[in-house]
Amino acid sequence: MNDNLPDEALDQLFRKARTYNAFLPTPVSDEQLRQIYELAKWGPTSANCQPMRLVFVKSAEAKARLAPHLSEGNRAKTLAAPVTAIVATDYAFYERLPQLFPHADAKSWFVGNPALIEVTAFRNATLQGAYVIMAARALGLDCGPMSGFDNAGVDAAFFPESQVKSNFLINIGYGDPSRDLFPRSPRLAFEEACAIV
Amino acid sequence: MNDNLPDEALDQLFRKARTYNAFLPTPVSDEQLRQIYELAKWGPTSANCQPMRLVFVKSAEAKARLAPHLSEGNRAKTLAAPVTAIVATDYAFYERLPQLFPHADAKSWFVGNPALIEVTAFRNATLQGAYVIMAARALGLDCGPMSGFDNAGVDAAFFPESQVKSNFLINIGYGDPSRDLFPRSPRLAFEEACAIV
Repeated sequence: MNDNLPDEALDQLFRKARTYNAFLPTPVSDEQLRQIYELAKWGPTSANCQPMRLVFVKSAEAKARLAPHLSEGNRAKTLAAPVTAIVATDYAFYERLPQLFPHADAKSWFVGNPALIEVTAFRNATLQGAYVIMAARALGLDCGPMSGFDNAGVDAAFFPESQVKSNFLINIGYGDPSRDLFPRSPRLAFEEACAIV
Repeated sequence: MNDNLPDEALDQLFRKARTYNAFLPTPVSDEQLRQIYELAKWGPTSANCQPMRLVFVKSAEAKARLAPHLSEGNRAKTLAAPVTAIVATDYAFYERLPQLFPHADAKSWFVGNPALIEVTAFRNATLQGAYVIMAARALGLDCGPMSGFDNAGVDAAFFPESQVKSNFLINIGYGDPSRDLFPRSPRLAFEEACAIV
């Protein structure tokens, strides 16, 4: 049995973590990006299906490819962020189930069932995107996730002729609390969002 | 700037965390369920929309209401778990945006746009479900998430005549590594799932 993590860890992951719009100039190394995935990959997905694909947009060339597809309010901050992760969803994920879930014929659950493919791919890639946010924070990095962009444009620029579709974006770096950090917005109280029955 | 969390914390959250099928008899208190939400609520959602609703199924009566809607392979373990959280999605989430995102008229972005409502609700409630898993682990608890159940049946039993729909389930307790813990399934390598561009 595990104990509670120390208060400072709970603060870093949840209570004091913020969505940053501006980042310090401190760079994020390729090794750190790899470490994020090497943690996030362990998060659970249904039938271990792991439909998330991640493109870390880091070079000036790739940022320029992303730029026209960002919403006006997200463009400048995204171009300035050290890295922007495109969290994407592989809708052909079930092709890999013989490798990922070897103890059952899980691929057969999906073939010919587009509604189940759709909901499973989107739910589980999104779960994995949240694991990426939590992994980045656990590694001392800050995130700025967003869904304000032209998905079709990003798909054409980064995933042409493929079963992979963009889901949401995460700017990653070391947050700069002195710039563009808004007052924290309210959260629903336990009684508004939850019930114990 | 934050540091990496210590290795033991990274193990607890990611590297050694497992999806448990069997739990120790140790109970989970209502206060612990509240603590899970009080951490998870801080996770980011788009326009702070917080569409997740959580029903913690704990009593024998409520477990009996859930039972007929579980898939055969998930029934016995779920009935035996100390708590089963129904992670649900409130498709009328935008009604609360004047409270949750007071600095813009975010509600108007959604009214009359059912496709945007649908994708925003499902994506963000799912992100929040992942935050619940990570919060439970941060508090020393173990999870057994699953999507193998009859959503319509669970909705009729727990969310009648409402805009709230079940998304996925999470058994919560202290995992019993001596029972029904399968060998860990493989994860995609960085090169299979990720690119740095």
